[in-house]
Formats: sequence, structure tokens, C-alpha cells
Amino acid sequence: MRNTFGNIFRLTTFGESHGEAVGGVVDGMPAGIDIDIDFIQTELDRRRPGQSRITTGRKEPDRIEILSGVFEGKSTGTPIGFIVRNTNQHSQDYENLRCLFRPSHADYTYYSKYNIRDHRGGGRSSARVTIARVVGGALAKLALRKLNIAITAYTEQVGTLTVGRDYRSLDLTKTETNIVRCPDSAKAKEMEELIAEVKAEGDTIGGIVACVVKGCPVGLGEPEFGKLHAQLGAAMLGINAVKGFEYGDGFNMAGKRGSEVNDIFVATADGEGQQPTITTKTNHSGGIQGGLSNGEDIFFRVAFKPVATILREQPTVDLEGNPTIMKARGRHDPCVVPRAVPIVEAMAAMVILDNYLMNKTVRL
Amino acid sequence: MRNTFGNIFRLTTFGESHGEAVGGVVDGMPAGIDIDIDFIQTELDRRRPGQSRITTGRKEPDRIEILSGVFEGKSTGTPIGFIVRNTNQHSQDYENLRCLFRPSHADYTYYSKYNIRDHRGGGRSSARVTIARVVGGALAKLALRKLNIAITAYTEQVGTLTVGRDYRSLDLTKTETNIVRCPDSAKAKEMEELIAEVKAEGDTIGGIVACVVKGCPVGLGEPEFGKLHAQLGAAMLGINAVKGFEYGDGFNMAGKRGSEVNDIFVATADGEGQQPTITTKTNHSGGIQGGLSNGEDIFFRVAFKPVATILREQPTVDLEGNPTIMKARGRHDPCVVPRAVPIVEAMAAMVILDNYLMNKTVRL
Amino acid sequence: MRNTFGNIFRLTTFGESHGEAVGGVVDGMPAGIDIDIDFIQTELDRRRPGQSRITTGRKEPDRIEILSGVFEGKSTGTPIGFIVRNTNQHSQDYENLRCLFRPSHADYTYYSKYNIRDHRGGGRSSARVTIARVVGGALAKLALRKLNIAITAYTEQVGTLTVGRDYRSLDLTKTETNIVRCPDSAKAKEMEELIAEVKAEGDTIGGIVACVVKGCPVGLGEPEFGKLHAQLGAAMLGINAVKGFEYGDGFNMAGKRGSEVNDIFVATADGEGQQPTITTKTNHSGGIQGGLSNGEDIFFRVAFKPVATILREQPTVDLEGNPTIMKARGRHDPCVVPRAVPIVEAMAAMVILDNYLMNKTVRL
Amino acid sequence: MRNTFGNIFRLTTFGESHGEAVGGVVDGMPAGIDIDIDFIQTELDRRRPGQSRITTGRKEPDRIEILSGVFEGKSTGTPIGFIVRNTNQHSQDYENLRCLFRPSHADYTYYSKYNIRDHRGGGRSSARVTIARVVGGALAKLALRKLNIAITAYTEQVGTLTVGRDYRSLDLTKTETNIVRCPDSAKAKEMEELIAEVKAEGDTIGGIVACVVKGCPVGLGEPEFGKLHAQLGAAMLGINAVKGFEYGDGFNMAGKRGSEVNDIFVATADGEGQQPTITTKTNHSGGIQGGLSNGEDIFFRVAFKPVATILREQPTVDLEGNPTIMKARGRHDPCVVPRAVPIVEAMAAMVILDNYLMNKTVRL
Repeated sequence: MRNTFGNIFRLTTFGESHGEAVGGVVDGMPAGIDIDIDFIQTELDRRRPGQSRITTGRKEPDRIEILSGVFEGKSTGTPIGFIVRNTNQHSQDYENLRCLFRPSHADYTYYSKYNIRDHRGGGRSSARVTIARVVGGALAKLALRKLNIAITAYTEQVGTLTVGRDYRSLDLTKTETNIVRCPDSAKAKEMEELIAEVKAEGDTIGGIVACVVKGCPVGLGEPEFGKLHAQLGAAMLGINAVKGFEYGDGFNMAGKRGSEVNDIFVATADGEGQQPTITTKTNHSGGIQGGLSNGEDIFFRVAFKPVATILREQPTVDLEGNPTIMKARGRHDPCVVPRAVPIVEAMAAMVILDNYLMNKTVRL
Repeated sequence: MRNTFGNIFRLTTFGESHGEAVGGVVDGMPAGIDIDIDFIQTELDRRRPGQSRITTGRKEPDRIEILSGVFEGKSTGTPIGFIVRNTNQHSQDYENLRCLFRPSHADYTYYSKYNIRDHRGGGRSSARVTIARVVGGALAKLALRKLNIAITAYTEQVGTLTVGRDYRSLDLTKTETNIVRCPDSAKAKEMEELIAEVKAEGDTIGGIVACVVKGCPVGLGEPEFGKLHAQLGAAMLGINAVKGFEYGDGFNMAGKRGSEVNDIFVATADGEGQQPTITTKTNHSGGIQGGLSNGEDIFFRVAFKPVATILREQPTVDLEGNPTIMKARGRHDPCVVPRAVPIVEAMAAMVILDNYLMNKTVRL
Repeated sequence: MRNTFGNIFRLTTFGESHGEAVGGVVDGMPAGIDIDIDFIQTELDRRRPGQSRITTGRKEPDRIEILSGVFEGKSTGTPIGFIVRNTNQHSQDYENLRCLFRPSHADYTYYSKYNIRDHRGGGRSSARVTIARVVGGALAKLALRKLNIAITAYTEQVGTLTVGRDYRSLDLTKTETNIVRCPDSAKAKEMEELIAEVKAEGDTIGGIVACVVKGCPVGLGEPEFGKLHAQLGAAMLGINAVKGFEYGDGFNMAGKRGSEVNDIFVATADGEGQQPTITTKTNHSGGIQGGLSNGEDIFFRVAFKPVATILREQPTVDLEGNPTIMKARGRHDPCVVPRAVPIVEAMAAMVILDNYLMNKTVRL
Repeated sequence: MRNTFGNIFRLTTFGESHGEAVGGVVDGMPAGIDIDIDFIQTELDRRRPGQSRITTGRKEPDRIEILSGVFEGKSTGTPIGFIVRNTNQHSQDYENLRCLFRPSHADYTYYSKYNIRDHRGGGRSSARVTIARVVGGALAKLALRKLNIAITAYTEQVGTLTVGRDYRSLDLTKTETNIVRCPDSAKAKEMEELIAEVKAEGDTIGGIVACVVKGCPVGLGEPEFGKLHAQLGAAMLGINAVKGFEYGDGFNMAGKRGSEVNDIFVATADGEGQQPTITTKTNHSGGIQGGLSNGEDIFFRVAFKPVATILREQPTVDLEGNPTIMKARGRHDPCVVPRAVPIVEAMAAMVILDNYLMNKTVRL
């Protein structure tokens, strides 16, 4: 509820873009896990702005500081508190927004709800807040490593430029070789050009992130309201700028017949006298059936709208409803998708670990 | 978690298709609401199978029985327990499935998770379980009535047949005039034919349900993990057979630029000396900005896959992994979409009411 | 929150004394447990009124009806819905209370909170509601059986008559041999006389229930807010008429010095080359240290006030605040303690099982 | 669950005695409350060690640092993150404990649960962790101020020295005038001497804290599992070293008759034509009836055991179970009660505010 995510592995976050720090508390981290701080920092660096010419020019060092829950390099089972200081805010960039509502931003709705206008850089609704999610996700990944569960997201679409191929035909190890985070190098180049072009126009553009979970054991998820894909969906829809979520064949399945998309079970004996392994011939289901993982790759896609802040004049109203014209200043991303890739992974990692732990409780 | 949905207004459900009853407990129903039992029954009747030639032939009377929480026609603020007896199960229809895993059903994943095979009609994963959701939703609607918040879902697509028009150009009062629950009567006719055709072939087909919430006050939702659309998404993805969720312009926004889809604020004075009302000129956002309702119509779409049970032979494996051939018997829906319409509404109603109550706690 | 108890093993209850039924949903029951319905009924019978001359004369058959979650005699891992019909209400006994607030009852506070006066037998605040807890506890006991964890409560005090001896010097198997549920037969006799005497005077009397948990593994409980004794305390204080809770040496420890009450660790080797078992020489701690079970017997005590309904004239006020005189009619317990014994056990059983399941998640 | 406390107003804490910092996140703080940092610091100072000759000699400055959720002096409705750095740890004082289990401490149970031995000063089980509770409580008090709800705790008993009088005959404004925090100055003197004596002997002693809540509106609490006293009980039992909780006449009521302790309602008209105010002539109930506040003073008592760390030799076992002798070093409290007073208040403040907010949701 509100600022806590998860059931057993729980992340509670705090912080706004121009406050002292963003941070959080991870409760339910299993005890005895090696806490590799460098890895957590690397994950944060993947999210950090200022990585390339197509991301915002803000320079935020974003150093992770772990405050508790780790002793002699291992998780102790007690809550892990952490903070990342805000050090590069240019609050004056936002001074002209003090009395305005930026179009398609959270300004108006927050003000209506709380009767407070924290005009500096989006406040709690800023994407900067996702730092805490990346840290939570990095901790989850450290636990999932021991379970050989791997989560990989990548940029599948920018604007209308799409990879146009199934993830199984892509070499996902190439995702981090370009600044767009698209495993198809040729397409990545095009996407990069498109983003640069849009940026030059003072505009922004949307896109799609795809994600694959490999090695997930059978049975994760809870059948009724906690279906695994419902949990993944909620996690993804909670990321700033996300407008849609689908898994497996997703929206395309609406146009299909059962006989086309049912996944047929097959069994492969691993050796004489061995219990056969049950798999499916196809994976239209996206690795989840009846809300539970079925051992196949989990696959889902997340749609991002274009960033609302454009560097152009836009009409709007002020706090009293008077019409006015605004023009954003400051440093903004022309396309959120490349930096969203590690956030998608982080959220997925937390969901999978949480369900792994939860699943331990269904039998004595 | 698991079988409870919501934060303040909470529905806990129980029951499987071939058990004694399905039912639930609604906790957090506000006190003093008129409980119109006939309305609840009407909502259940909308969900009920056997309504027409394009739904399953099962006859389930599905009578609601309220066991507590109502006194002299009004909610008392204490939990409302309710049951609906199962009376028309043909368990023998499923006897041949005792040792099989039906393709794209929950059989294999449930068995792996719980080590129990309740083979009768899908057990807990049966769509019959959604009865409890419809009751919870009907109770929520009774409270929302007092707040003048109205929720209307309709069939937008069956197979590849789509209404192809914005909900604002449709007369949504026509939704219940045909058995497909599509407000475009001509299109409804085509959809009905398509479903009948698919049924005759022993096959099934998917589709899309759209939903509109009118009258929602500004500020509902919680900014971080409880974004209103994330809660709606989780609710919809928890419905059987759902593969995708999007709100506002959804996946289409991935291909758009910020300058195209930003919703510009305008203010309209209701009269001299009155506080102006702030609205947006367009509603690409779908009524939610920064995770909070902004007072515009909330609009979202839900994709359903074709029902997994087809009346044709399919290869599969048994509990030991031996290959075999199965053919479903019994009475099944060729397309789940028309009956899903009230379920989509029910889940949305619970989310909106829950957030309305939650929102009362943000100020002293 | 509100009407749900527990974290992993969760009981949600509904029902009021004069409604259709009381019941509940147990979510998180581990799969594969033998569900012995007769045992559940026996537990209900222990709670039932009309068992003897010193309990209320109401005759309530209180038949358990399990509606879901059990298949071929075993728990399936899905929620267990259950109801117990109300069949012996004499609502007319309460007609004269429609406009009164009974002293030391929940009438006034409920009416103030909900603005509804359900005057029939206490409504949701009735002890009849504890039926759902006994069922939840019986299910928990069935799971604990497999873990060899045994929970035994008994009447330690009625009025000022107290057993006055440590539970270790009592034969707890004798608890059920008398109607007071006191393992000291001589003292039980005196208590029975006292209750009969009090009843004859139209008065009521309080008492104390003690409880022992044997076989609890080390480490159950959560260190910070979920300390095992805090969970047990909340569970016990949630039982009607309870005014106090203490564990181990309890309030007596306030007057003691550390050197008197520290429990010294000792180790006993079970055999050559075996890991020694660590125990404590004394058990002032009551089996819980730092909020976690330490493997010793868990021991706690629960204080009950005298039942508020006395069969004498009492002054009070009506709904408008006018002074008046009331006299209760109907059938009431002169002392709640004997019937509270199984309820104390039930609540403890749910807490212990919940923590056992929870504890499975602290390591990968 | 685990490290989160509360439902709507929620405190999540982290930190151990010898880590970098202790801290937490307050989620659900109402928006628009004046955040008086000096007041929060004053509350922390009341808890701080080294205040006098009868508390531990540790010097901990314990400076509060608020990291988020406050803008221009007011709460924004977003989560308030805060930390207090650990600056005065003498970890070497604990080096000799690395392989020992201290009697009646959490060492053995934590080690068994997590398989990690954080031997430095109690780790997460240290009373230092209560800092986060005091901050959470101070924030709650700032909100309660606006509601004119006041919470006052005091030392009622140290060892067997007890105030022996009802709180209504005490001048509670004197509580902070002496280092024992007992409003009876003469008794305070005796208590101080006793603690000094016990300290000189290298021993420790227990005691009792009493607490009064004034100005609480009628109807707070939730009837079934969330009874107000059950929530208060759980909160108090979660404080280190607490062994018992009672409210109103508590354990004494076990020995009483209904005719002696029923609280009779009376109505007092505030003026002609005014709705009369309903109160009770006596307050044996302690301000809570049926689990809900009734508008009278809420009164409860909390029993503390003597601190387990005594400065004497004690036998114990090491991690392998070998018998050994230990002697604590370092700086420890001879009696925890005076410093527990603000912690009791803090926990009570959070419970009352949480229930106040929760109560706003019972009607539309």
C-alpha cells in the first residue's frame, strides 16, 4: 500500500527529486546472501542520467550508502536501510513552475490531493524516485543469482521503430553494448538517431521495453488476486510513464482462436528411470498459466509514453485557473526507454524473489 | 495477498467450481449504505452462464445469500459474508481429466505448486470463482452510486472484429441490448455470428473489453506503488484469461511524441466569482496523471485470450509425463468476453471505492 | 486489519450473533493436511454454550460446514470457507435494548462509530463471533499436529480462587475432566461452586486462563514489531472481555532483579559426536527471548473481566441520553473463563502456525 | 509485519546498534502538518542514554536528520524518511561476546533463526533501535496536537516501589521534573536511590510504566482483531523488555464481579437544546469498550523486566554449546523504565493517530 511494495520481500521507499536524499528499506531479504555493493552501484549507474548524448545532461553521481542489515559482507535477515543523496538539483530551474500545472504531469493531481505544491522537479512523482527501486531490485538479483534465475530487459521499440523479432532470435548479451539498450545493433543505431532528432526538436518520444525471466521454477504466483502476471503488471504500471502491460502473446491473443494459441505439453525424459520434465511446445502463454509460472521463459512487454516535459512553449493554467504559457527549462530525457530498462528488471526481480519466498509457505 | 483484494474495502474470496459454494467476505464496506439485494442478483445474472446461444449451456441459478453485515436493509460497517451455492456441477464431465494436464490451463502449475490434483472443472482456477468478485463489485457500486461515480464496460473487440471507434462516439446505454454486450448494434451482430461460427467449429476466440469510469473525483490513487492505473491493471490482470492491460492511449502512445499527446489544461469558470474548474482539452492520459485521477473520464482496455478449453482432440501428457490425447467434454464458453464485461466493471468498482476511502486519510 | 488475522495463515471472519451465520475464510492453510472435520466439531463443542449448569442455558448446535479448500479429505492450499448457522437466537430477548446502551458493553461505542444500532445480542461484538476463531484455530492445530507442537490452555483463576501453582506441577491432561476446565480437581470444585453462587445472585465473575505451548521450534517470531509475544498478546487481547496479558513471569518481573530472573543457558549432549542441545535452566522468559521462541515451553496468562451482562437492574441512558433503568433478559454466562479456554488455544495455534510458515522465508 | 508498524500511518524501521545508522520511513503522515524538528529532537533527547547518573553512561548525540516528505516546514503527504547516525559505539566492548550467548538476551534465538551472529551490542535487538519509534511517535504527536489528543506516560513502579495511587490523584505535569520520570516526587526520590543501589551492585531492576491518553474521540479502534487495546497491547509488547500489558483495571478485574466493575453511563446536557454528552461514572474499562474508545481517558500499564545485562559473572555456553563464564563490559542501564517512558508514549501516539485516520473510512 502506498510506498511499500511486496509481501515477504518488501521495499518501502522515500524521497523526492529535490529533497535531501532518496532511499528505502528492504525488509525480508533472506539472511546469508553475499551483498556485493559494487553490483548495486553498477545497477544504479545503468539508471543514472547523463550516460550519453540521448539522455538528460544532469550529472548525478548517485552513490549508494547501505546503513544496516549487512554484517561482514552478508545480509543478516534484518532490514536493509539505504540512501542516495541528492547532489545535483537545480531547483531554480523549476522556480517558474511554482504556480503552474505542467501538462500531462502530476502537478495538478498532487496539488488537488495534498493541497501542497512542491514544484521542484516533480517532487515525489519524479523519475528520480526510481533509484530506490533499482537498489531494491539489485538486492533481489543478488538473491536470485543463488537460484540461477536471470532477468533481462531490453529496448524493443522507440517511437514506431521496432525490433520486430521474437526475443529468442536476439542475442540479449548485446543489450548493454549500445546506449539505447537494444540487442539488435542495426536497429539500435536507428533508434539512437531518432531520439537525437526528437531531442533536437525539443520534443520527446515513447517506446516499449521487453523483458525475459529465465530459470524461474514452476509454481510461483498466487492463484486468485496475486497471479504472477498481475503482480508483474502492477509492478510495471507503477513505473513512471508506463501506459500498458502485456505478457506472452498479449493483446495479439484477442484476435486469435484457442486452437492457434494453446500451448501443448510435452515430456522429455532426461535419462532412463528418470522423472520426465514437462515443458510446452510453444510459449504463447508467456511462461505463466493460471497465474503461476510454468517453468518456461516468462516474457512481457511494457509501453512507455513520451516524457511529458518538452522544451517547447505549451499553454496551461496556473493554480487559480488563469490561462498562461509555460516553457520548461532544465535537463530532461527525450526518451525514457533506455534508462527504464534497468528499472523494469529491478521491479521484475523483486516480484520473482517475493513469490519465490512466498511459495515456500504453501506446504509444511 | 493471495485471496484478499483491496486495502480499506477488502474482498476475501473462497470456493472452487465443484465445491459446496463460492463466496467471500467484504470488509470495510462503509456503514449506512442501502443494500439492494436485487441489484446484486442482477449483477450476478449478467455474469451467469447459459444466458444465450453464444455462452456455455450450463444452467447455474447462482442465488446470492448474504449472511452478515446488513441490518434492516443497511450496511452496518461490519463484514459482509456471502455465499452462492454450486448446484449444477457435472463433475463426471471431468472424470477423464483426473490424470491429465489440459493445455494452457492451470492444471499443471497448480499440481506442481500444491501437489494436489483437483480435476473437477478447474477447481480454484475456474472462472466460476469470479462470482465472488461480482458480488464484491456490486456492493462497491452501491456505495459509488451515492457518490455519483458510474462504471461502464463493454465489448470492444471479438477476434479481429473491432468497434473501431472512440467510446465517446458510442451510446453506452445500448451495451446491454445485445448478448455480446457491444454498444454498436451492427458490430454486435457480426460479433455474435463470429462467436456462433467459432463455437460450431469446437473452437474459441479472444477479444477486448473497454471500460469507462465517469464522475471520479480528482486525486484518487497513491503516488508510488499504488498508482490508480497500477491498481486497476492488477485488478484486471487478475481476471481469468486476461493477457494485457492499457489505459488512456496505451500501447499506441509508445509510437507518439510528447507534443502530440500532452493533455493541455483549461479552466472553465462556472459562474462569476466561482472557483474555475480545471479540465484537459484532450484525454490521452485516460483520466489518470501521476498515478492519480484527474477528474476526466478514466478509460482502459483489457485483452482476453481465447478460452483454453476447445472441443477438439489435443495432444498432452498425463501426471507421469506419458503422451496422450484428450478431448474436453462438458459445457464451455466459445468466447469469454461478453460475460467478462460485468467482471471488469466489478473489479473497477472495488478499486475506485477502495481508493476513495483511502483518500480520506491523506488529511486530518 | 479489521477482520483479518495473521500474515501467511490468515483468518478473515464475518457474522454477528443474530444474523444468518457466522463464518470465515482461512487463507494460507498449507496444502496436503488431513482435515479431520470431527476434530473441528469437537473444538466447537468445547466453546459451545449450554455445556453445563455454570454456562449459559442457550442451546446452539453450532454445526461446522466447510465450503471449499478441501478435496478428498485433504487441504488443497486454496482458501477454506466455512459457516456455522445461527439457529437459536431469541432476538425478542433483546427488544427492550433497542434504544438503550448497556453498561460496559460495546453498544455505545459501536453506535457512535457506525451510527447503526444492531441491538440484537451484541451484534458483531458478541462472543458468538469467536466461533470463527475456534474453527481457524482447529485448522491450525491440524497442521501443528504434524509438527508435534501442542497447545494447552486451562482455567487458572476464577474470581480470587487461584490454582496457585506452576503449570509444571499440574497434570494438564485433567483439564477437560471438569466443567471449569481447571486441571486441579479440588480447586475446580471450589470454582464451580463459586460460579454457581455468583450466577444465583444474578451476577458475573472474572478469571484467568493460562496457556502452554510445547514443542515450538527455536526462532519463531519476528524481531521488531512482530515479536512472538506481541503477536500472542494482540491475539489474546482481541478476545472478548480480556483486560490483560503477560508471558513468562510477567508483571512479577517488574519487581525483580536481573540476577534473579536471568535464564542461564546449558547444553546437553544427546550422545557422542552429536551437536549439543541448548536449553535454559529456568524459564522466567516464558519460552521467548528477543521476541523469538527459544525452544522452551511458551507460557502466558490472560485476564478476563466479569461478563458485563448481569441479571440485575442497572441505571443507564438511552440513545438520546435520557436516564433509564434496564434489566437484561436472556441467557448469559456467569463466568466466561471455562468457555474461553478453547478460544485462547485457538488464537495461540493460529499465531504459532503463522510464524512457523513465516519463518520458512528467512533463508533461501 | 516484521519491521512495519501500523495500517494507514505506518512506520518502517531499520538499523542495529553498531551499524551506520538507525532510521525509518513514516508513510501516511497527513499532509499539511507543521513539522517541528526541535520537538522531534526533544523527544529523542528524552530517550537518549547518558541523561543522568541512573542511566547508562553512553553518550549518544542522536541527531535527527529528516530526508524527505517535508517542504517549507509542512508535511507533504509523501513518506518521511529519517536517519540518526550511530556515533558512539564501542564495538570492542562486545568482542568477547562474539562466540557467546548472553543469558536472557536475543543472541541465541537470533543466531538460530538467521545463522548469523552480529555480536556487537545486541544488533537489531538493541534498545537503540527504539530511536526510530520515538521519531515516528513524535511525528504522530505533531498530528495529534491539532486534534487535542494528549498522551502522557510515567514511571509507576521501580522494583517493588510503587506510586500506589490512581493517575487522577497525581500531577502528571511533574513527570519530567525528576530523572526517574515519576510524578510523585517523594516516591521518585526513593526510586532513584533504589536504582543507584542496584547499579552499584552490578545488578538491574524492573518496573512499570503507566500511560494516559486524554481527548481521544469516541469510536477509535476496529471491533474484531483490531480492538484498540489489542493494538496498544501489541505496540507495547513490541518494546524491548516488556513482559505484560493491561488496560483499565486489568488483571485486578479477574477477581471482581460484574456488579462491581460495570461502568454506568450518565448524560450531561451542555446547555438547553443541546445534545447531551454521554460519559461513564467510573472508568474500570480504561476508556475502551468493545475494542473502541468511549471518550473517557484511556489508561494502561506496561511491565518491564530487569535489563538482562548485569555487570556480574554469569555462566553460559558458547556457539558450540561448551560451558563458559561471561562478564559483560560496557555501559548499560540498571533500569530501563525511565527511558522507556517516551517510547511508551511514542507507540501509543502512533496507534491513536493510525486509528483516527482509519476511522475516517467507516462512512462515505
